[in-house]
Amino acid sequence: MFYSSKDLKFQLFEHIKVSELCKLPYFQEHSQETFELVLDAADKIAVHQLRPLLTEMDRQEPKLTADGIKVHPGMRKIIQTFGEDGWINATFSFEEGGQQLPNTMHMAAGFIFQAANYSSSVYPFLTTGAANLIRTFGSQELIDKFTPNMYNGKWQGTMALTEPDAGSSLSDLSTTAYPTEKEGVFKIKGQKIYISCGDHDACENIIHLMLARIEGAPAGVKGISLFVVPKINVDTGLPNDVRTEGVYHKMGYKGAPIAHLMMGSEDLCEGYLVGEAHRGLSYMFQMMNEARVGVGMNAGAIATAAYYSSLAYAKERPQGRKIGEKDPSQPQVSIIEHADVKRMLLFQKAITEGSLSLLLYCSKLGDMAHAGKGEAKVNAALLLGLLTPIAKSYPSEMGCLSTSAAVQVLGGAGYTTDFPVEQYYREARIHPIHEGTTGIHGMDLLGRKIVIQEGKAVQLLMAEMIQSIARAKTVKQTDSFASTLEKYMQKAQQVTGHLLQKAGKNPEVYLSDATLYLEFLGILVIAWRWLEQGMDASSQLEISTQDSEFYHGKLMAMEYFFEYELVKMGALEKRLLSEKITTIAMQTEWF
Amino acid sequence: MFYSSKDLKFQLFEHIKVSELCKLPYFQEHSQETFELVLDAADKIAVHQLRPLLTEMDRQEPKLTADGIKVHPGMRKIIQTFGEDGWINATFSFEEGGQQLPNTMHMAAGFIFQAANYSSSVYPFLTTGAANLIRTFGSQELIDKFTPNMYNGKWQGTMALTEPDAGSSLSDLSTTAYPTEKEGVFKIKGQKIYISCGDHDACENIIHLMLARIEGAPAGVKGISLFVVPKINVDTGLPNDVRTEGVYHKMGYKGAPIAHLMMGSEDLCEGYLVGEAHRGLSYMFQMMNEARVGVGMNAGAIATAAYYSSLAYAKERPQGRKIGEKDPSQPQVSIIEHADVKRMLLFQKAITEGSLSLLLYCSKLGDMAHAGKGEAKVNAALLLGLLTPIAKSYPSEMGCLSTSAAVQVLGGAGYTTDFPVEQYYREARIHPIHEGTTGIHGMDLLGRKIVIQEGKAVQLLMAEMIQSIARAKTVKQTDSFASTLEKYMQKAQQVTGHLLQKAGKNPEVYLSDATLYLEFLGILVIAWRWLEQGMDASSQLEISTQDSEFYHGKLMAMEYFFEYELVKMGALEKRLLSEKITTIAMQTEWF
Repeated sequence: MFYSSKDLKFQLFEHIKVSELCKLPYFQEHSQETFELVLDAADKIAVHQLRPLLTEMDRQEPKLTADGIKVHPGMRKIIQTFGEDGWINATFSFEEGGQQLPNTMHMAAGFIFQAANYSSSVYPFLTTGAANLIRTFGSQELIDKFTPNMYNGKWQGTMALTEPDAGSSLSDLSTTAYPTEKEGVFKIKGQKIYISCGDHDACENIIHLMLARIEGAPAGVKGISLFVVPKINVDTGLPNDVRTEGVYHKMGYKGAPIAHLMMGSEDLCEGYLVGEAHRGLSYMFQMMNEARVGVGMNAGAIATAAYYSSLAYAKERPQGRKIGEKDPSQPQVSIIEHADVKRMLLFQKAITEGSLSLLLYCSKLGDMAHAGKGEAKVNAALLLGLLTPIAKSYPSEMGCLSTSAAVQVLGGAGYTTDFPVEQYYREARIHPIHEGTTGIHGMDLLGRKIVIQEGKAVQLLMAEMIQSIARAKTVKQTDSFASTLEKYMQKAQQVTGHLLQKAGKNPEVYLSDATLYLEFLGILVIAWRWLEQGMDASSQLEISTQDSEFYHGKLMAMEYFFEYELVKMGALEKRLLSEKITTIAMQTEWF
Repeated sequence: MFYSSKDLKFQLFEHIKVSELCKLPYFQEHSQETFELVLDAADKIAVHQLRPLLTEMDRQEPKLTADGIKVHPGMRKIIQTFGEDGWINATFSFEEGGQQLPNTMHMAAGFIFQAANYSSSVYPFLTTGAANLIRTFGSQELIDKFTPNMYNGKWQGTMALTEPDAGSSLSDLSTTAYPTEKEGVFKIKGQKIYISCGDHDACENIIHLMLARIEGAPAGVKGISLFVVPKINVDTGLPNDVRTEGVYHKMGYKGAPIAHLMMGSEDLCEGYLVGEAHRGLSYMFQMMNEARVGVGMNAGAIATAAYYSSLAYAKERPQGRKIGEKDPSQPQVSIIEHADVKRMLLFQKAITEGSLSLLLYCSKLGDMAHAGKGEAKVNAALLLGLLTPIAKSYPSEMGCLSTSAAVQVLGGAGYTTDFPVEQYYREARIHPIHEGTTGIHGMDLLGRKIVIQEGKAVQLLMAEMIQSIARAKTVKQTDSFASTLEKYMQKAQQVTGHLLQKAGKNPEVYLSDATLYLEFLGILVIAWRWLEQGMDASSQLEISTQDSEFYHGKLMAMEYFFEYELVKMGALEKRLLSEKITTIAMQTEWF
């Protein structure tokens, strides 16, 4: 078991209430029944196609050959399945051949794939993201030229942003596009690094959505344009001068190839401008929320798989006796009987299920921002923007600690390759880095999202929390937790107000602990999601005795989060209210 | 650079004041000058022999062949050097051919070796530990038979404790020793797992110090005896029926082989009883403090190497601009200029140098407990016992987070095998597991060390802290930190008192958050070590302007620890004072 179907369905149908989306015209063809079919279909693929390759794909890394990068031979069949079964364009409109599936359900299915075998799940999701850019901002000609074979899985899509001298600092990218006589067609010259699925042999072509600077464009972020750059020219069938310079060897997530690409070394690389010139970065950023929530989901899914692996081990592994039992002739107990092991399991449960709640909540906001109407649509977009850095970073950062707890539950066995938890530990570590490091998201939250529209997004979040608290106070099992959350919410308001005073005076000081603020607000938000889960579990316990063990577990995980995690806000508060500018005062030469 | 010679010398000579040991008769032949020669010699070996194999040993894992486990061919020369240069028995007496080197200096040299290439450092240190057991508890016959070739590096020593059904629960081990007609010689039957350096081809023989139960011995820990079990019978030169069943594949620390051993499958395995029957576990535990402080040192050394790797990268890597600089035509700055990067570097500095201070302090206590006199000797042993779980666990747990911060400083590059930080990240993860998991050490601290002799060890620790606080209040740079530490020390006393009330009533409840208590007290102890380092840095700044940058860095790292780390005690205090028994109340079926 690498995820809990019961929990996923609870989260979707009883907690997030995804079926409410079916009231929106865009999703009206759907219902809880069709959603459950989606989950069942995802489970089948995950169990039968992805999961069996989990270990093999880690052990047989992609290799660079004279013909490009070779990946595990099983990937071809997997990508075909994703294409043929309609997963790649599932969220797109009926007119485009899609299924108008809510993004929330696409993310839920993704969660299943990622928990089964993270590396394999990356390929189709990247193609979805790349195709989404073309269909949203590209001309009909580009859409017709590229998207059909991306949707059916024949061609791989990528997002080609990073360059050797422009990692977190996109404004410095230097790949250049030179106009040609053909309208909309440019000659591309430059290099890109760390391109996920940037080259491989499980598809017939690779379609890069690439950022580059048109010759003579202004410096900085405003001079960046978006291009489609295929590996093979789709008109001529000839190579398009995109050379694979290397494949990165990584600590984990080894089943997906990460490429170093060189464009135009023979001056023959053609790229097609997407939308208007110089607007590439803004196009990219309009897709960012989804991609970033997606990374949070990856991290949460890996941590979930690790949690269930350690849970199974803890139930089976006999070791030691209960405290107070001194008789060595008594049989040993399963380690799950030890309080400290239960603590490590509860920690994982609280982190992974709390993260999943936030991620699905954000996904639903995305659906409302896309298909909703009026104020609800606008507010959903604002709230999603605010929560995105948290939804990306909290599961990523805490996912590393959660998988670490899984390793610890297994002890020495967890450190060996005999169990998958060590692989999860290695795979978890990428998420605080890619799609914006945690530091970048801290600055995004505090420097941008908190202040836009005079703090309207924060006000929306607080209004939601106040509503939750009011409701939770009327429920016996959540009453005291609601009061606790209220106090911490007030702490958060005080800290935010305190920091905002510094914003104008000294932006460097203001942002110097942005990463801590991100963690601080993240804990509050997850506590709120747990309060909501606690209420929903209470409701179910009132309705029937079915699955009562599951719902009791939810209430205990809520309690765990409040007892062991929420209190951490106090330590962060103390630092965030301090006037000492330690990190700024530290000098390079003093290290 | 994988460690700082400047910092190590500061810690040893200005901070811990290791040369004070030379006043003890046992160490009177030594002086700061001879100690510096030891460090220089260790540095040479580390730089010229160990460091060059760091990556190779990770990539070329030990392999099991028909002739046993094959390790990297470079290890033979390395072990020879350790043997020939006298490192293996350096701390033993002159009469035994040793150098009566303080353990503190042996640990300091070990720190250099471990930071250079952790896997390679494991081999000789295990031999030292095994030989130490023989020479301390074994007969002269056993000493003469085995130790000379262990000291000279021809034979490898191991500690063979763990069995498939007895990991953390040693009382359950079932390897059995059957008496033979020869006195002191037993036939051994059983299996051992996770035996570090349990078999390899870089030495001529492997000498296992093995726990087993003499046939008919009482159940539990009181029926365990200690045996010397060589791989090859040293009298006959024939194999001693110790079969290597397997080699473990591990996440990291791949250069050292971890073996699965089967003894007596042909009924021919002979073992030699060490000391008295049934006292094996108590012998082992008398060596445990050293081994456990040693594991803390391993963890600290790896984190140190990661710190310097990320520091070098941060100084060299240009990326982005200072906050407020919007002009993209301005050159990028080195990432060390960004406050958040400095935060991640200060975190590493605070963790690694704080850990090293505690580890060397404990090593010196070990020397005083060994070679000191009267009350000082007794008190040193008591204090060392109390601090050992912290010295083992704090660097191990925080070392994982510290190496993680190193990876984060490098961003995507840190996740690739192009830089060593990903290897450090994998190697760091073993330390919270081996030589007693963190959970075990929590119970050792709260369940045993806090309460022995009516809390005398804690009283000794608090008395030391009170003295430090009083002195620090007289120094301008440490005054305010001393007051802060005083408040947190009082918190610690309150929490300890609160917990102790539960000890008699319900031991399971009392110990349920022992891991948190270990973390709680660990933070306090490291803050105290930082206050001491702050005072010693202040003294140096008063004496001269030499190395003033280094000492300013010390003061800033102290400030960092108090601002960002010490505050975490508040969150732990809140949980430790709570009456909710969440982990105990949670039921297995609710997960």
